[in-house]
Amino acid sequence: MSAAAASPGGRMRSWMAEAYPICRSITGDGVRRTLDMIEAALPSGVSMTRTGVPSGTQVFDWTIGDEWNVRAAWVDGPDGRRVVELADHTLHLVSYSAPVRTRLPLEELRPHLHSMPDRPDWIPYRTSYYHRNWGFCLPHRQLESLEPGVYEVLVDSTLEPGELVYGEVVLPGAGAGEVLVSSHVCHPSLVNDNLTGLAVATELIRHLAGLEDRELTYRFLFAPGTIGSLAWLSRSAHVIPQIRHGVVLTGLGGGGPLVYKQTRRGDAYVDRAAEHVVGRRGGEVRGYSPYGYDERQFNAVGFDLPVGRLTRTPHGEYPEYHTSADDLAFVADDELEESLTALVEIVEVLEGDRVLTNLSPYGEPQLGKRGLYPTMGGKSASDVVMAMLWTLAYTDGKASLLEIADRADLPFAAIRAAADDLLDAGLLG
Amino acid sequence: MSAAAASPGGRMRSWMAEAYPICRSITGDGVRRTLDMIEAALPSGVSMTRTGVPSGTQVFDWTIGDEWNVRAAWVDGPDGRRVVELADHTLHLVSYSAPVRTRLPLEELRPHLHSMPDRPDWIPYRTSYYHRNWGFCLPHRQLESLEPGVYEVLVDSTLEPGELVYGEVVLPGAGAGEVLVSSHVCHPSLVNDNLTGLAVATELIRHLAGLEDRELTYRFLFAPGTIGSLAWLSRSAHVIPQIRHGVVLTGLGGGGPLVYKQTRRGDAYVDRAAEHVVGRRGGEVRGYSPYGYDERQFNAVGFDLPVGRLTRTPHGEYPEYHTSADDLAFVADDELEESLTALVEIVEVLEGDRVLTNLSPYGEPQLGKRGLYPTMGGKSASDVVMAMLWTLAYTDGKASLLEIADRADLPFAAIRAAADDLLDAGLLG
Amino acid sequence: MSAAAASPGGRMRSWMAEAYPICRSITGDGVRRTLDMIEAALPSGVSMTRTGVPSGTQVFDWTIGDEWNVRAAWVDGPDGRRVVELADHTLHLVSYSAPVRTRLPLEELRPHLHSMPDRPDWIPYRTSYYHRNWGFCLPHRQLESLEPGVYEVLVDSTLEPGELVYGEVVLPGAGAGEVLVSSHVCHPSLVNDNLTGLAVATELIRHLAGLEDRELTYRFLFAPGTIGSLAWLSRSAHVIPQIRHGVVLTGLGGGGPLVYKQTRRGDAYVDRAAEHVVGRRGGEVRGYSPYGYDERQFNAVGFDLPVGRLTRTPHGEYPEYHTSADDLAFVADDELEESLTALVEIVEVLEGDRVLTNLSPYGEPQLGKRGLYPTMGGKSASDVVMAMLWTLAYTDGKASLLEIADRADLPFAAIRAAADDLLDAGLLG
Repeated sequence: MSAAAASPGGRMRSWMAEAYPICRSITGDGVRRTLDMIEAALPSGVSMTRTGVPSGTQVFDWTIGDEWNVRAAWVDGPDGRRVVELADHTLHLVSYSAPVRTRLPLEELRPHLHSMPDRPDWIPYRTSYYHRNWGFCLPHRQLESLEPGVYEVLVDSTLEPGELVYGEVVLPGAGAGEVLVSSHVCHPSLVNDNLTGLAVATELIRHLAGLEDRELTYRFLFAPGTIGSLAWLSRSAHVIPQIRHGVVLTGLGGGGPLVYKQTRRGDAYVDRAAEHVVGRRGGEVRGYSPYGYDERQFNAVGFDLPVGRLTRTPHGEYPEYHTSADDLAFVADDELEESLTALVEIVEVLEGDRVLTNLSPYGEPQLGKRGLYPTMGGKSASDVVMAMLWTLAYTDGKASLLEIADRADLPFAAIRAAADDLLDAGLLG
Repeated sequence: MSAAAASPGGRMRSWMAEAYPICRSITGDGVRRTLDMIEAALPSGVSMTRTGVPSGTQVFDWTIGDEWNVRAAWVDGPDGRRVVELADHTLHLVSYSAPVRTRLPLEELRPHLHSMPDRPDWIPYRTSYYHRNWGFCLPHRQLESLEPGVYEVLVDSTLEPGELVYGEVVLPGAGAGEVLVSSHVCHPSLVNDNLTGLAVATELIRHLAGLEDRELTYRFLFAPGTIGSLAWLSRSAHVIPQIRHGVVLTGLGGGGPLVYKQTRRGDAYVDRAAEHVVGRRGGEVRGYSPYGYDERQFNAVGFDLPVGRLTRTPHGEYPEYHTSADDLAFVADDELEESLTALVEIVEVLEGDRVLTNLSPYGEPQLGKRGLYPTMGGKSASDVVMAMLWTLAYTDGKASLLEIADRADLPFAAIRAAADDLLDAGLLG
Repeated sequence: MSAAAASPGGRMRSWMAEAYPICRSITGDGVRRTLDMIEAALPSGVSMTRTGVPSGTQVFDWTIGDEWNVRAAWVDGPDGRRVVELADHTLHLVSYSAPVRTRLPLEELRPHLHSMPDRPDWIPYRTSYYHRNWGFCLPHRQLESLEPGVYEVLVDSTLEPGELVYGEVVLPGAGAGEVLVSSHVCHPSLVNDNLTGLAVATELIRHLAGLEDRELTYRFLFAPGTIGSLAWLSRSAHVIPQIRHGVVLTGLGGGGPLVYKQTRRGDAYVDRAAEHVVGRRGGEVRGYSPYGYDERQFNAVGFDLPVGRLTRTPHGEYPEYHTSADDLAFVADDELEESLTALVEIVEVLEGDRVLTNLSPYGEPQLGKRGLYPTMGGKSASDVVMAMLWTLAYTDGKASLLEIADRADLPFAAIRAAADDLLDAGLLG
């Protein structure tokens, strides 16, 4: 293993580079190969469970469609030269393109070609999941240069009964309650959206697997967007009541600050935990909106699960979004590592927050005689002392450590460490 | 009818131009003539009820005073030339001036003359309803030029037992509950304060009369300020319990943004509705203050009616306020029309808001198969789709459409239209 | 008495000038002499009660230590010249320095010397209450110039069983409930921290003693910081349940705006009262923090007393804090007088706030017929009329006069005066 791969950032980059060329969609072998790759990266003793939901299955208001696979797809020009070739870039083919082999003049081909006039060198990402069609995407500069004449088109795809597949990784905890971490596996060669989500989720599994004591159970869901999370919801009636907190992971690189999107209700505990962490890192907190990723399904009125979303700059707010410019160069290792760190900090809150009681509540206890205070008076208190004073001032049997940290404007970890010292000194219980 | 008069702005301007020269006060024939003019402008099938409350009647803490009428009033100078003439401008005479015919030197006349030194060309508006007195108002420049000598003064007025008159126009609704719309009729030749209120109220009656289904009853009150609204309150014990929402209309032209003044409690439903409409139009929302117009009476502790107030720049905040510069040129048609539109939008909220329930609450329903979603994925959702998604996300049987519109930062009409589409599709109930 | 001394500012300055040279600490004769000086300044008929708590007494988590007194302390240089002399400035000696008489080379003396490299002309303030040690403080410029060689050191102090002393001044009120006003007496020659607190507290006693009717009992506590307030709390179990409001006074000069620090809960009545007063004076309101003065003890979870703190620029936020630059020149008379005025205004709220009921609630009462309104209409209402209108609008039997003043954005005194006029007119009850 190289030095780079030994760091979280290096491991995530290597994984993304390998997963990048796979042609994923909401069904098909691309999803299976991606789940294989996630499974291969899991730490020892941790395994993935896969579920296949057959085509034709009703999942709430939706129906699982035929499975889509593609062997080859291209367009040849009037001069016989290859104009567009799926093997060059998975974005070249409109996802779920129906099979076709035909020859047709440019003017008839034209409605099947998609480009971005304002970004003439980029290939856009297009899908047609629920409307049978076919199409190709290419740089606008290339589209503009196409000569009149007859083109030959091949889409060697199949749309046949099969299944929609999703994977779950469960890390059991000692107590009741689950944390749902969900990241979509359906996007082809787009790195920020969403190889970053998959890579960071996998690293988070490594971190959690290494924790000695986990109170909560962590359930990682790797499913195709929308229909995949709905399929999981339809098969998880026994799990749903256990979910206490949740977060959707996507777009965790690409510059810009961390952005946490609140749950629909906006007052869930995970909102408080994530706001504390993301806010202290200079990130943004945004209210819920019904547009986005699978948080839409988890938060729907009928489920009402407290699932937020962590991204950096959200979808649609950076020009590279859903284009070939969302490539490996678009995300940096330190961006992914900060996203991972923020998630680890959120987990520390979920695991470590509690309500404690000051056992020496009649005035301030004498910290000095316990070796917890500087001996020479007259100067300002250190951060460590301040964290203890805040903790003692508000551990009234009602406020939690997270609430105290927010009130004190100190990191949760500082209040948690102070509480541990005070517990050791017998001042809290 | 001219083209101008066919538009709401044109109609309102014509009406105001005709009503401008009438010498109104809190009692007297000026009020009767103004009510005649409003009645004449009502749509067919709609009528006005008038109530006369005799002089001497006790209304709560107040007593209806004598009725004031004036036939003529002027001041002649030492050289016999007319210095001030009521027929030139109704503001020339202090309202409720007692009758007088006398000759007196300038130094004795001077205390009866009112002007604005800082606005030397404008005539101020002064009243002396409850303190028997007489006086004239004139431009300061003119006052300064008065020569010493003996002046002749005539105020040919009467202050005799009569009545205070107010008018009501009621548009019945199908359900319970009334909306009170009140606008004062006591101000003489001042356009923004308050011919605009009367003109916009009359147009709003036209609009409401044309609605097919009205759920609420709309009660328009045209009464003299303070004593008139108190007289109405004293005679309306049967109506008061029905009032659900209310708004005082005045100062609806004159530039500046729309300004909504909240009810005394500040948390009435009409506050939410008006804040939504006025806020989206770039207007201001202000807290209650016990100074202003008849909202003071309706909101008094003993009545506690939820009556807000709609103006543009409020009284006292523009230099033309209560001067001859508040004339027909001071208000523009588009200002009045926007005020009317805002009121129509508030009515749309009052009539159209409701609590609905998502009938497909388990995840997002598949809008595409119902023709409600674009078929090609990968781009942003349209405003119409977003309005549907917001509506589906929050129709939990508790949130109203207005609350959803505020949360979504979308116009109520957009959420209402989305809800109608979703109702048609069977997705809401 | 000089003219200056006849004014509150002059009296406070004279008092501080006399108290400045006394060597105070948390125990010892310096505290006794300071209490003597406060007692001497009390108005006739008002007396101070003193309590001595013996060394070795346990007060909650703390123990009263030995009493510290010092007769002399100095350092002589290798050439026999006096380098540091306690008689020159009480800050020269680390408070609670243990007795020592020794000769030692500079390198061994050096760890016992404290200075401020960034403020080379100032003497810092240092204490060592709970860690037996000795030391001297001096300007950094002087410390830098010390020649190598053998120095002679004398600290002629005693640390022996004695007592901790605090004083109380109680001004009884007609009703139930007490107001605690606390100011620490333990700091040596530092003017803002805390001769200003003691001087303003003494003037406030003069003011309160002169009031005809006091509803509340006012209890002034003059105690050493931390251990002194804890000692008082340990001996005051009968008083604590009576305390309704409280304020710690310190740092009431020295420029900067008034700063009110909230109680721990932040929603006590004294918070509302002080915020009203301090806010209207352009001051700042800050949330509670567990660092500061004796508010830490009063607000501790076990006592939970509603005690805020009034200062100007708080401790640690001005460079002169805890240095010899906090001298008589650092505070100005008008700063102290404004602090006193703010406290008097807070007392006016505590004493004068009440819930009244509008007895003429059906519309606005006719103020004019009661001589409470200008007779000529058409202009803006005066401040006096506005205060009456606000009072009438919200005296619904629930809102207090302070709440009305805040809502009206008017001084409490204006609303209180309006309420008095309306009570006289029979409009309130």
